[in-house]
Amino acid sequence: EKLMKVGVIQSHIVVGDMMGSAECFARDYRTAVAMKAEIVLGQEDALAGYCEGDQRLYPSFSWEHKRALEYLAGQVGDVPLVMSVTLPNEPKGKGKPFYNMAVIIQNGVVKNLQPKTNLATDTVFNDYRWYEMNHGEIAVFNHKGLRCAVLVCQDGWASYDAAHGEHFFPRDPVNELKEKGGVDLVLMPNASPYFWKKGRERFYVVQEIRRKLHCAVAYANYWGGQDELVFDGRSFIVARDGTVVGAARPFEDAVVVADLDGEAVCYPFDDEIQDLEDALVISLRDYVEKSGFPGVVLGLSGGIDSAVVAALAVKALGPGRVLGVRMPSKYSSRGSLDDAEALAKNLGISLMTIPIETLHAASHITLEPALGHKPGENPKNPKAMTDENLQARIRGMILMAISNDNGYMVVSTGNKSEMGTGFATLYGDMCGGFALIKDVYKLDIFALARNMNKSKVVIPENTITKPPSAELRPGQVDSDALPPYDVLDPILKLHVEESLGLDEVVEKGFAVGVAMRVITLTRGAEYKRRQAPPGPIMTKNGLAWLNRQYPITSRFAP
Amino acid sequence: EKLMKVGVIQSHIVVGDMMGSAECFARDYRTAVAMKAEIVLGQEDALAGYCEGDQRLYPSFSWEHKRALEYLAGQVGDVPLVMSVTLPNEPKGKGKPFYNMAVIIQNGVVKNLQPKTNLATDTVFNDYRWYEMNHGEIAVFNHKGLRCAVLVCQDGWASYDAAHGEHFFPRDPVNELKEKGGVDLVLMPNASPYFWKKGRERFYVVQEIRRKLHCAVAYANYWGGQDELVFDGRSFIVARDGTVVGAARPFEDAVVVADLDGEAVCYPFDDEIQDLEDALVISLRDYVEKSGFPGVVLGLSGGIDSAVVAALAVKALGPGRVLGVRMPSKYSSRGSLDDAEALAKNLGISLMTIPIETLHAASHITLEPALGHKPGENPKNPKAMTDENLQARIRGMILMAISNDNGYMVVSTGNKSEMGTGFATLYGDMCGGFALIKDVYKLDIFALARNMNKSKVVIPENTITKPPSAELRPGQVDSDALPPYDVLDPILKLHVEESLGLDEVVEKGFAVGVAMRVITLTRGAEYKRRQAPPGPIMTKNGLAWLNRQYPITSRFAP
Repeated sequence: EKLMKVGVIQSHIVVGDMMGSAECFARDYRTAVAMKAEIVLGQEDALAGYCEGDQRLYPSFSWEHKRALEYLAGQVGDVPLVMSVTLPNEPKGKGKPFYNMAVIIQNGVVKNLQPKTNLATDTVFNDYRWYEMNHGEIAVFNHKGLRCAVLVCQDGWASYDAAHGEHFFPRDPVNELKEKGGVDLVLMPNASPYFWKKGRERFYVVQEIRRKLHCAVAYANYWGGQDELVFDGRSFIVARDGTVVGAARPFEDAVVVADLDGEAVCYPFDDEIQDLEDALVISLRDYVEKSGFPGVVLGLSGGIDSAVVAALAVKALGPGRVLGVRMPSKYSSRGSLDDAEALAKNLGISLMTIPIETLHAASHITLEPALGHKPGENPKNPKAMTDENLQARIRGMILMAISNDNGYMVVSTGNKSEMGTGFATLYGDMCGGFALIKDVYKLDIFALARNMNKSKVVIPENTITKPPSAELRPGQVDSDALPPYDVLDPILKLHVEESLGLDEVVEKGFAVGVAMRVITLTRGAEYKRRQAPPGPIMTKNGLAWLNRQYPITSRFAP
Repeated sequence: EKLMKVGVIQSHIVVGDMMGSAECFARDYRTAVAMKAEIVLGQEDALAGYCEGDQRLYPSFSWEHKRALEYLAGQVGDVPLVMSVTLPNEPKGKGKPFYNMAVIIQNGVVKNLQPKTNLATDTVFNDYRWYEMNHGEIAVFNHKGLRCAVLVCQDGWASYDAAHGEHFFPRDPVNELKEKGGVDLVLMPNASPYFWKKGRERFYVVQEIRRKLHCAVAYANYWGGQDELVFDGRSFIVARDGTVVGAARPFEDAVVVADLDGEAVCYPFDDEIQDLEDALVISLRDYVEKSGFPGVVLGLSGGIDSAVVAALAVKALGPGRVLGVRMPSKYSSRGSLDDAEALAKNLGISLMTIPIETLHAASHITLEPALGHKPGENPKNPKAMTDENLQARIRGMILMAISNDNGYMVVSTGNKSEMGTGFATLYGDMCGGFALIKDVYKLDIFALARNMNKSKVVIPENTITKPPSAELRPGQVDSDALPPYDVLDPILKLHVEESLGLDEVVEKGFAVGVAMRVITLTRGAEYKRRQAPPGPIMTKNGLAWLNRQYPITSRFAP
């Protein structure tokens, strides 16, 4: 009797919660078995959670992990459970202290297959900091008449990359399996962080494995937020002929059991703006819940960034846990105040109004004698942003005082276009525990706003249509200081996500002056970004250190 | 005629300044040749500078690097120059896009020897993000009758590690050279960042290579500050019998040419507190100069941290480029104001006095109606630090306003004991462009102060002897909130530098309650550290992400 039913677990765990993860996998395993799965697939680094970082260097980490794995093994019967786990490189071997080990668990016994071969160390990844790579073969095992192999995450990507002319790793485990006579089923445990439209890429990676080996492939991924990473799930099972026979929806717990000659189901592609919205909502919710904050507080300027962040926060936590604060100055327009009020009303959130004029005036009284002139009116440094920054920092101080007082976390509202160009005040509007949209371009903020307004108006129309302004000077608009967003955003994208320098950006058709301006601003704002709050990565390359390791004091101009 | 005279270059370059580096190496090479060197050794990644990070992914990086290498090659004659450089992995090979390639340059020709074999990826290192490792042999070449080999940095460490029971890498290039029949001279280009007392370790690494291969060893290292890294130099040459025949002093440009049977000279060990002081001074000077700031500004509380930072800043930049600011509140003691004044006088720096009472009162007027009570007097949250944080943030805002106004960079003054336990206010005393002492324990701050007072009193005696206090409440002292520093600092050191968890720290003889407190505080302050300014790494393991990659929302308790 040939193996036909494959189960895939899509779980949401908390990093470092080894026993909690073991319980979660045991429960989902039982569900899959009850659904007649004949083999069950879990995630990569399934008990510790990805990425547990340097925590694993503490001795008790390994003890807790061992205990959790023993517990999980004790819950597994005749139907095997496949995943990868962090195991010590022992008896004390040469190289890094751990392996990211593909394992098959059956009847209480954990059997090691092989460690992850292609260690991911680009973008947000850092596997080789802790893991020694596989120096041996890719194991093949028989189960119910099928030849099976486990490819941990990147181990399945080399063939897809090669098909695109890329060779990020010296080895291609898929080719190696082919040379060994092929397999019938590839099982892929993953910890594949989301970025917008990555689901499509994963789909083709899996199809490339299937095409090359003419085998079925099961793909399991986490879902949920983990500091700056968000996992979207999208676990799925593809039959030998390319039919998607099982697929989990993104961003939810799932146990999928599919027949390898079952009916076709839809793979959930992630090309719609709704997907970006879902990822942002999940990332905020998980950060807040895992940190134990009772709610969040944010400044509502009447502008589109804070409006979108507030709306996302309400989706993440409900209106009762979101507090908006208007902080008008003498430069705030009546329209902005009204827009903020309309937004709060649409969202059903509480709104505080705390004028900053008293503090702003006090800052002038305090500083003028010391500086010898009004803040921002230094004749030797006429371009100094002293007064604008004071206003932003007073607002940051007010939000942080509310946070200290009621325990709510401040959500900061700067977008990727601002974070790229440094159009934000350090310790001012950059204050916060989580920078929710720091990896979302301004143009995508508009798209998110329009999407959220689809069925009924949530973001006031005026907030979307008026020209963006920081309102820190009379009549100020963003376009005084920055190129229009439909020029800025594409240049930033080429520069940050595609690693194109000035020459290459100009070749793409942008004016040299504007391109140079954007690239120079990006380089010059590195010092600000180093002190930005963490925030979820939503693109192929974010601007945070995790994603973009760029020295501050370099002389190289890209 | 046998090769006898080996030259070592110890240079200070700016990361990303490829042509500048080439000129620097060409000049030093000529000096070494004039001093009769028969072979000359430079540093690791010698033209780009270590660590250039993701900059190398931009196409123009490789062009500029290529041009600089060609220029340098054109300056090299019959006497060979050995170093390592970043070369593309091409013709497009498999694996990472670059090699950290050991090269020998002679008569205008660059010859590749082998790439770095053991890629450093622990602590501050991340080689495998960009470099493919050596999959071949370690090259041996003949020069003037000696068999020579080049070991790039970590390639020389595996034997030393093995002697200590450690095997961080699968390969040991020193053993491989031994199996190939040994060599007479090992040349080691390095980019080995400083931490206090690391010079001693490097000395024994080199001696282990010499012992095992019975060969002479030349060791070249950078000096200078590079964002959070500081290089101390300490380049040296050891003869076959273990005699140090040449050695450069730390933290200065040097060209050392030594006879392989020359007289013994002193190796500059780094066991004295003076070494830590020098490293801090260099790191601040380089950060300020490479960033182009006219000077630095810092708050002078009258306490020891700000006093030591001010004294270091004066050593780095001279008194004319350092501005101290006293920001008294109603809780500031007369003594503290006097201590700050005495310090400024001793150092010869300008001192501003900007009282914070007006702003502090304005913050209460602003916030009380919104909160429904005075800041810090929330009956539902009596432990809230709202009012203490307001004072710290007002001070931060004042310093940043001065910085905006005159272009001076704010130096923040928090030490490692505070950064570890979170005893600092985000956006308050944590404000700054550079956190100079963030990796220096409080006890070492006292040692630095005493060392600086050796010949004449610079730090007022009262600043050293009074009990440390933040003066944010009447009668507040640090020991209200923290264990005494002679308990706190050793626990932090075990926990952060040695990766010991609660059980292991208690085994070392510390009370379980105190140990748990310190470890819990450390874990809980991760979110603050993520937003701290960059600052130089002075210990085996700092607390910044570069050094300690620790998730914020984890459930694991080490």
